[in-house]
Amino acid sequence: MPSYKAPVDDFLFLFHELLEIDKRSDVPGFGDLTPDMTGAILEGGAKFCEEVLQPLNQVGDEHGCVLENGVVRTPPGFKEAFQKYCEDGWNRLGAPEAAGGAGLPSVVTFAFAEMGMSANQAFAMYPGLTNAAYSALWATGEPWMREHVAKKMIAGEWTGTMCLTEPHCGTDLKLMKTKAVEQEDGTYRITGTKIFISGGDHDMTDNIIHMVIAKIPGEDGKLANDLSTVNFFMVPKMLVNKETGEITGRNGVSCGSIEKKMGIKGNATAVLNFDDAVAYRLGGAPKEKKTETGEVKKSKSAGMAGMFGMMNGARMGVGIQGIAIGEVAYQNGVTYANERLAGRSLTGAKNPDGPADPIMVFPDVRRLLISSRAFVEGARALAMYVSMLFTLQVFGKDEKEREEAADMAQLMTPVIKAFFTDRGFQAANDAMQVFGGHGYVRDHGMEQFVRDARINQVYEGANGIQALDLVGRKMTAKGGRATMTFFAKLEEFIKENENDPEMKPYVEPLRAGYKRLGEAAGWLMENAPKNYDNAGAASYDLLNIFGTVALGWMWAQMAKVSLAKLKAGEGNKAFYERKLTLARYWMEREIPMTAAWVERAKQGADGLMELDAAAF
Amino acid sequence: MPSYKAPVDDFLFLFHELLEIDKRSDVPGFGDLTPDMTGAILEGGAKFCEEVLQPLNQVGDEHGCVLENGVVRTPPGFKEAFQKYCEDGWNRLGAPEAAGGAGLPSVVTFAFAEMGMSANQAFAMYPGLTNAAYSALWATGEPWMREHVAKKMIAGEWTGTMCLTEPHCGTDLKLMKTKAVEQEDGTYRITGTKIFISGGDHDMTDNIIHMVIAKIPGEDGKLANDLSTVNFFMVPKMLVNKETGEITGRNGVSCGSIEKKMGIKGNATAVLNFDDAVAYRLGGAPKEKKTETGEVKKSKSAGMAGMFGMMNGARMGVGIQGIAIGEVAYQNGVTYANERLAGRSLTGAKNPDGPADPIMVFPDVRRLLISSRAFVEGARALAMYVSMLFTLQVFGKDEKEREEAADMAQLMTPVIKAFFTDRGFQAANDAMQVFGGHGYVRDHGMEQFVRDARINQVYEGANGIQALDLVGRKMTAKGGRATMTFFAKLEEFIKENENDPEMKPYVEPLRAGYKRLGEAAGWLMENAPKNYDNAGAASYDLLNIFGTVALGWMWAQMAKVSLAKLKAGEGNKAFYERKLTLARYWMEREIPMTAAWVERAKQGADGLMELDAAAF
Repeated sequence: MPSYKAPVDDFLFLFHELLEIDKRSDVPGFGDLTPDMTGAILEGGAKFCEEVLQPLNQVGDEHGCVLENGVVRTPPGFKEAFQKYCEDGWNRLGAPEAAGGAGLPSVVTFAFAEMGMSANQAFAMYPGLTNAAYSALWATGEPWMREHVAKKMIAGEWTGTMCLTEPHCGTDLKLMKTKAVEQEDGTYRITGTKIFISGGDHDMTDNIIHMVIAKIPGEDGKLANDLSTVNFFMVPKMLVNKETGEITGRNGVSCGSIEKKMGIKGNATAVLNFDDAVAYRLGGAPKEKKTETGEVKKSKSAGMAGMFGMMNGARMGVGIQGIAIGEVAYQNGVTYANERLAGRSLTGAKNPDGPADPIMVFPDVRRLLISSRAFVEGARALAMYVSMLFTLQVFGKDEKEREEAADMAQLMTPVIKAFFTDRGFQAANDAMQVFGGHGYVRDHGMEQFVRDARINQVYEGANGIQALDLVGRKMTAKGGRATMTFFAKLEEFIKENENDPEMKPYVEPLRAGYKRLGEAAGWLMENAPKNYDNAGAASYDLLNIFGTVALGWMWAQMAKVSLAKLKAGEGNKAFYERKLTLARYWMEREIPMTAAWVERAKQGADGLMELDAAAF
Repeated sequence: MPSYKAPVDDFLFLFHELLEIDKRSDVPGFGDLTPDMTGAILEGGAKFCEEVLQPLNQVGDEHGCVLENGVVRTPPGFKEAFQKYCEDGWNRLGAPEAAGGAGLPSVVTFAFAEMGMSANQAFAMYPGLTNAAYSALWATGEPWMREHVAKKMIAGEWTGTMCLTEPHCGTDLKLMKTKAVEQEDGTYRITGTKIFISGGDHDMTDNIIHMVIAKIPGEDGKLANDLSTVNFFMVPKMLVNKETGEITGRNGVSCGSIEKKMGIKGNATAVLNFDDAVAYRLGGAPKEKKTETGEVKKSKSAGMAGMFGMMNGARMGVGIQGIAIGEVAYQNGVTYANERLAGRSLTGAKNPDGPADPIMVFPDVRRLLISSRAFVEGARALAMYVSMLFTLQVFGKDEKEREEAADMAQLMTPVIKAFFTDRGFQAANDAMQVFGGHGYVRDHGMEQFVRDARINQVYEGANGIQALDLVGRKMTAKGGRATMTFFAKLEEFIKENENDPEMKPYVEPLRAGYKRLGEAAGWLMENAPKNYDNAGAASYDLLNIFGTVALGWMWAQMAKVSLAKLKAGEGNKAFYERKLTLARYWMEREIPMTAAWVERAKQGADGLMELDAAAF
C-alpha cells in the first residue's frame, strides 16, 4: 500500500522564506499567518490527510461508486471521512467569516488542497467542488441562498457540483441544449442532460446543490447558437424552503448513470438528467444594451462572471492536483528505489555486503525521481506565488499592485492547469516505472496514481485549450500587459543577480530560457496575425517554454534564498542543499528543452494543416 | 466501440517499394514474396484481426481472467478465437516447414504480429509467447521435444510461456532463487516461484509448456550468486510421454494467483509455483573450461543462448506492440476528430452550415494526430527493415552482409523496444486526449489503449535498462563496429542525396540530427571511461536521439521513394503525398528535439548523483 507524508516543511519554506507572507501585515489575513500559525494549520491538515484520507485511496479505487435503486453509493468509509472532514473544519478553511468560515487566504487553502489531493484525489474532489460551488453562490446568490444554502455547504451539511458539459459539447458552450424556461414566479425550469458531473450524486449528504449553466430560449421558444443566452443557475437536488431552509421534497434532477472510467473511481461521475427542475438564476437579469448598429442585445448575465470565476479557481485547483499526485507518487518511488536490490552501481558496489545494490544507485533511476521532485517543488512555489496573487488582486496595497497581481494570476492560470497536469502525469508515470512490473500490478497503488492523474489533463478545459487560451488570450490581453509584466520581473531578477558568482549557475540558464521565451513570443506576434493557425500550431510548444521558464524563475529564487540561509548557517542545511541540487537539475536538464521547443514553434502551421482531413 | 483497419497498404509499400524484398531472390523465402503473395497473406491476416480479434478487445478488458477452483478462465470468446487462429494457420506462419510451419520470414510474421497487437494485445500475447517458446524449444530441445512438444505448440494444441521473473528479482538474474536439482535419470526437479508470467495459466489448451530459467545448486546444495549457474529448462504443465507425446498427468506446477493489473486484462498474468516440477534442461550440459588461472569454470549452458535469443525476439515483438497500439489509437482519434463538432477554425468556419467545425480544423489537434502517425509509420519502416535483417543475418549473400545485418539488428533492438514503446504509449495517450472527457470514460475504449500500452515500457526489460544496454553494450560492442556501420549508412545516404534539391528538406534535418547523435556518442566515448555514471546519466537522452535520428533516416528514405513515384506518376498519389507530409513533420518537429537532448546528455552524472540517497 502506498504511503504519504505531507510536505509541510516545504510549504513553510515557501510561505515564510520565499514569499514572506507574514511580513505583509497590510494585507487582510496575512498578518496572522506567523510560522507558528501556519505550522499548526498545516500539521493538522497533514495529519488528517495522512491518517484519514490516504488509507481510503485504494479502497475508493477498488470499490468505485455504484448506482443502485436510484441511490449512488460512495466507497466504504467515504461518508464517515467526509463527516470528520467537516467536523474538523477543513471544509470551511477559506470560507468568509461572515458565512461561518475561517476566512483564511488562498495560500493556506490551496496548500491544504494539495495535501488532500495527494492523499486521495477522488475524495478531495467532493469538498473541492463544494468549495467552488459555495464560493460562486456566495458571490452571486440572493440573501436566502447565502443564508440557507451556501452556509449549509460551508458547514458540510450539503455538497455542490459544477454542471457544464453535455453529451455533445464541452468547451463550446454555444452548442448547449439544456433549456431554462422562466416561470411566472421568477424561477426557471431546466430540462436537459449534463454529463461528467464530478460528485454529481452520492449518499454522503442529504442535498446536493448543482451550479448549472443553461440556455434561456428566445421568444420563439427556440435555443439560439449564441453565448449570450447562456445563464448560470442554482438547481438543488432536493427543493429548499426559502424561509426556513428546510428540504421540502425532490426536485426534477435524477442520476442517469455513474460513468465507468479510467481512474478517480471513488468520485461519482454522474450523468444528470434535469426534467423541469426548479432553478434559480444567479447574478440578476442580463442587461440589455444597444450595439453600434442600433440593435438591442442582451449582455451576458452577471452570473456568468460567477461561473467563470468558479472555473478559474477550479483550473488552479486542477493544476495543484498535478503537483499533488506527482508528490505522492515520487515519495513512493523513492521508498522503492531505496529498498529494491538489483545489479551493481556502474562505479562499484555500494552495498557490497548485500546480494545487490539498491536501484537508487543508478543515474537513470535518479533521473526519473529528481525530475519529478524538481517539477513538484518548482510548481508548488509557483502555485503558492499565484495563490498569494489571488489575495493581492483584491487586497493589494494600491491599484498598481492589485492590477499587476490580477494580470499575473490570469497569465499563469492556463500554464498552471496544463503544464502542471502534464508534468504531474509524467511524474506519476515515472514513479511507476521505477517499480518495473510491480508498478503495473495494482497492489502497490502506483498504477492508480497514473490513472487518477490522467483526468487532470482533460477536465476543466483540455490542456490543448489551455495552450490556446495562453497564446490567444492571456498573453495578448490588454496589449500584452501581463506578458510584459512577467518579462519585466524576469529581467529584474536576472539583472539583480547576474553579478553574484554563486548565482551564476542559476541566472545564466534562466537568461537563456527567458531569451527563448521572448523569441517564441516575438515570432508569434509577427506571424499569428498573418495566419491565426500559426498561433494554434505553436501554442503547445509555447506553453511548455512558458512553464519551464516560470519554474526556472522559481528555482532561481529558491536557490537565492537557500544560498543565503546556508551562508548564514540558519535552518536545516540538508533542506537548502537539496534545494540547490533540484535547482541545478532544472537548469541543467529542463531549461535546455526550451531550445528545441522554440525551433518547433517557429515552424508555423503549414506542415500541420496541409493534409486534407480525409487523408488522415 | 473502437474500430481497426489494418494498414496493409503501408506494409506493401515497405516490402516492395522501400525494402524491395522481392528483388532479393537469392535469400531463401524472399523470392516467393511477390506483391500478390504478400498482399494475399496480409489481407487474410487483416481480415482475421479486424473481424475476430478486435471485437474481443474490450470484452477481454471488461472480464479479465479469473482463477476459480484451480482453473484460470480467459474472457468469453478467447478460447474459440484461439482455436480459429490456429485452424487458420496464423500460429505457424513463421514456424519451420519441417515442423509443419509455413516457414515465412520475419518481415511477414512481424507484420502480422503488429496487426494482431493492434486488434487485441492481451489476446495476441498468448500466441506471441507461444511462438517465442516453440522457437527456443525447436532450437535447443532434444528430438522428442521437437516432435512431441514443439510441433503441438506450432499446431496450436498447446501454448508456451517464458518464466524469468521472481518476486524479488527481474533484471538481475543473479539473485534468482528458483532451484533445479538434477535427478538420476538426467531430468531435473524445479522448485520456486515465478511471477508476471504472461499467459501463465488458462483454459484454452490442454497443456502449457513453460520455458523456465533456474539455478543449479553447487555441490553443497546451495545456490550461488553467479550467472553461470543459471540454466534454461522446459517444464510442461502436464507431463508428456517422451515416446508417444501423450499427456500422462499433472506436473508440479500450479497457479498461485492471477495478478490484478492496469491493463492487458485479457491476458492471464500468473504467479506460478513450481514444486518439485519435472524439468528438462535445454541445450545440453554446461561445458567446463579452464580459466587463465587454471581454475575450472562451467560455461553458461548452450540453452541460455536460446533464452537470450527468445528475449531478443520478444523485445522486437514488444517494440512492435508500441507501433500497434499507436496505430489503432491514432485511427480512432482521427474518426473522432472528424466527427466531433466544437468551436470554429481559427481562420474562419470550415463547416459553415453546421453548428460548429469538426475539431480536426485545430492545429493542435492535428499535431496530436500527425505526431502519432509519423511515429507509427517511421517506426514500422524501421521495424520491417530490422525484420529483414533478422533473415539476412542468417541467409545474407556473404559474410559481410550477414555480419552487418547481425550488428545492425542488435544495435537497433533496444531502440525498438524502448523508443517505440515510449512513443506508442504517447500516441495512445494523445489519441485519448483528442477525445477529451469521452476518452477518460471506458465506452470509447481509448483509455484501455493507454492502460494496455503502458506495460510495453516495462516488460522484457524496463526501458531504462534498454537505454543502458544501448550505450553500455550495443553501441560499444566489438569496438563500436555496429555504431560505425550505422553512421556510415547515414553518411552514405546524406552524401547520395544532398545535391537533390527536392530531397533538401529531408536531408538537411537528417544531417543535423546525425551530427548531434555523433556529438552525444563522442561525448560518451570521452567521458564514460572517466566515470561510468556519465553513461548511465546520458543513456536515456542518447536513446531518444538515436531513435529520432533512426526514424528520420527511414523518413528520408520513404520521402525519396515517394518523390520518385510521384514524379513517375505511379501508384496512389494521395498515399505518397501523405508520406511527404509525415516526413516533413518528423524533420520539422521531431529532429529539433535532438538539440535539447544532446545538451542534456553532456551535463554528466554529477547533478544526478550528488544527492545522498537518504535525502531524496
